[in-house]
Amino acid sequence: MTGNSPIVGVVGLGSMGGGMARSLLRAGLVTHGFDVDAARVTEFQAEGGQGGSFAEAGPLLDIVATVVVNAQQTEAVLFGEDGLASVLRKGAVILSCATVSPDFAREMEARCASLDLLYLDAPISGGSLKAGQGALSIMASGSDAAFAAAQPALDAMAENVFRLGGMAGAGSALKVINQMLAGVHIAAAAEAITFGISQGVDPQTTVDVISKCAGSSWMFEDRGPHIAEGDYTPHSAVDIFVKDLGIVSDVARAAKFSAPLSASALQQFIAAAGSGFGREDDAAVAKIYARNAGLELPKKDG
Amino acid sequence: MTGNSPIVGVVGLGSMGGGMARSLLRAGLVTHGFDVDAARVTEFQAEGGQGGSFAEAGPLLDIVATVVVNAQQTEAVLFGEDGLASVLRKGAVILSCATVSPDFAREMEARCASLDLLYLDAPISGGSLKAGQGALSIMASGSDAAFAAAQPALDAMAENVFRLGGMAGAGSALKVINQMLAGVHIAAAAEAITFGISQGVDPQTTVDVISKCAGSSWMFEDRGPHIAEGDYTPHSAVDIFVKDLGIVSDVARAAKFSAPLSASALQQFIAAAGSGFGREDDAAVAKIYARNAGLELPKKDG
Repeated sequence: MTGNSPIVGVVGLGSMGGGMARSLLRAGLVTHGFDVDAARVTEFQAEGGQGGSFAEAGPLLDIVATVVVNAQQTEAVLFGEDGLASVLRKGAVILSCATVSPDFAREMEARCASLDLLYLDAPISGGSLKAGQGALSIMASGSDAAFAAAQPALDAMAENVFRLGGMAGAGSALKVINQMLAGVHIAAAAEAITFGISQGVDPQTTVDVISKCAGSSWMFEDRGPHIAEGDYTPHSAVDIFVKDLGIVSDVARAAKFSAPLSASALQQFIAAAGSGFGREDDAAVAKIYARNAGLELPKKDG
Repeated sequence: MTGNSPIVGVVGLGSMGGGMARSLLRAGLVTHGFDVDAARVTEFQAEGGQGGSFAEAGPLLDIVATVVVNAQQTEAVLFGEDGLASVLRKGAVILSCATVSPDFAREMEARCASLDLLYLDAPISGGSLKAGQGALSIMASGSDAAFAAAQPALDAMAENVFRLGGMAGAGSALKVINQMLAGVHIAAAAEAITFGISQGVDPQTTVDVISKCAGSSWMFEDRGPHIAEGDYTPHSAVDIFVKDLGIVSDVARAAKFSAPLSASALQQFIAAAGSGFGREDDAAVAKIYARNAGLELPKKDG
């Protein structure tokens, strides 16, 4: 650590990681950005960020946040060929932010511990806007030492840090629970709004009325307007829920836990991805409902 | 109508109708209560309400709210032997508050019209507490004349009146949409909280964290604590969602609308009712999830 201020790295400068890296910069922390897309790193450097390869910059880092897509990428970043774990100093802390299974988080913590690295199971929630504002929610679990080492970065990136226990696993478990509900609620919103069309109810009316009733959810209020307006610009894509409800399915099956609603929702997202809507907004799952019932959804601008 | 103040009847003095009848009394309206359980009527009379049979009191009424369990009871009250429709004065308005299919609401409106009776498709939402406070939400559709005639009662009973169109059907459609979402969200809350137990996460932690995250819903926040506290005192019973998701299923099937999440949720409530939990709080659907996974739910008082 340089004086009192740690040097931070962010691996993955996409919509979430990019915002987090900028929040760290804004908090006055020296921040290295890493991405397979060199243009993202160049852009980050133009805003005051640092670059460098894992081999060059890794040994300087006190804190690393891995903000990649899934467990496979997380493992590759840390333990793949020329991975970060082999170049980080002892006592550096890794914040693992991807949505992964609790078992994977525990495995990563153990492998990091064997190299004298600290590990915080730290999946994130809140979307790209909050990432850029340093206002994420982080569902975190890990040792007291990992929390202490990560604190300056947590302060800069998060509005809410849920401290969920002394070991990796609990953070990822809560994130998986959240994604289970979020995915079911998005599909349920699509099911309900499209069902309304079958009953002659305009989608905007369904959104307006249900938002004030006991049938509402955070996702209904957020995604419902996308369907009513016919705007499938991806804030979060269908493919994300194919992945995240897939993790739910894997974890539930491993625990012999029967999760029929999550399973139904996953199938609807898979059908949406299989129909070519994978990169559209997750509200595009409504297109499956509409097509299966021979109904027309609202179209953007008319 | 006697002077400017209409005389009102409420058929069904259960947890919803009883509260509504008392809200009408409090608003200064002469209110007749009707119930198959004579003790409820006696109790209502002790609080200032009026009694009488349909034959005796029916001809006095300007407004009647039917607050019974389902379509079958609604039809029996209005058109059964010695039913109300045969004794009401021409121009009286019926507010039909049960959750029914949009087709049934349209049929009732037409049959009432043939007797020169006004009909308001007026399902209610908000629970017994709000019923007693005159603070319900009412999803209403019907003719301008029906709305005008019903206005004094709507003012006394409701905080929000959603005016959804000029014909019966739209009100019931919105109510069915709301119950679809409410039922799916209760089952999803049970699925998620019980899944959390399988991952070693305490139900109270799931409730606390998810309530602040994008996975939350109105029902998660309301029913989640029942599961975390192991308190299945019925606020709204499992049997209600067997009925209401059954209506969703019937209406969706008739429209050739595929509704897989609603179908999954219905099966979980049916399993709960079939296991003897029909009269417990609807959050008792969690017991099916727990039993199917060999898990223990929290128990009340320890």
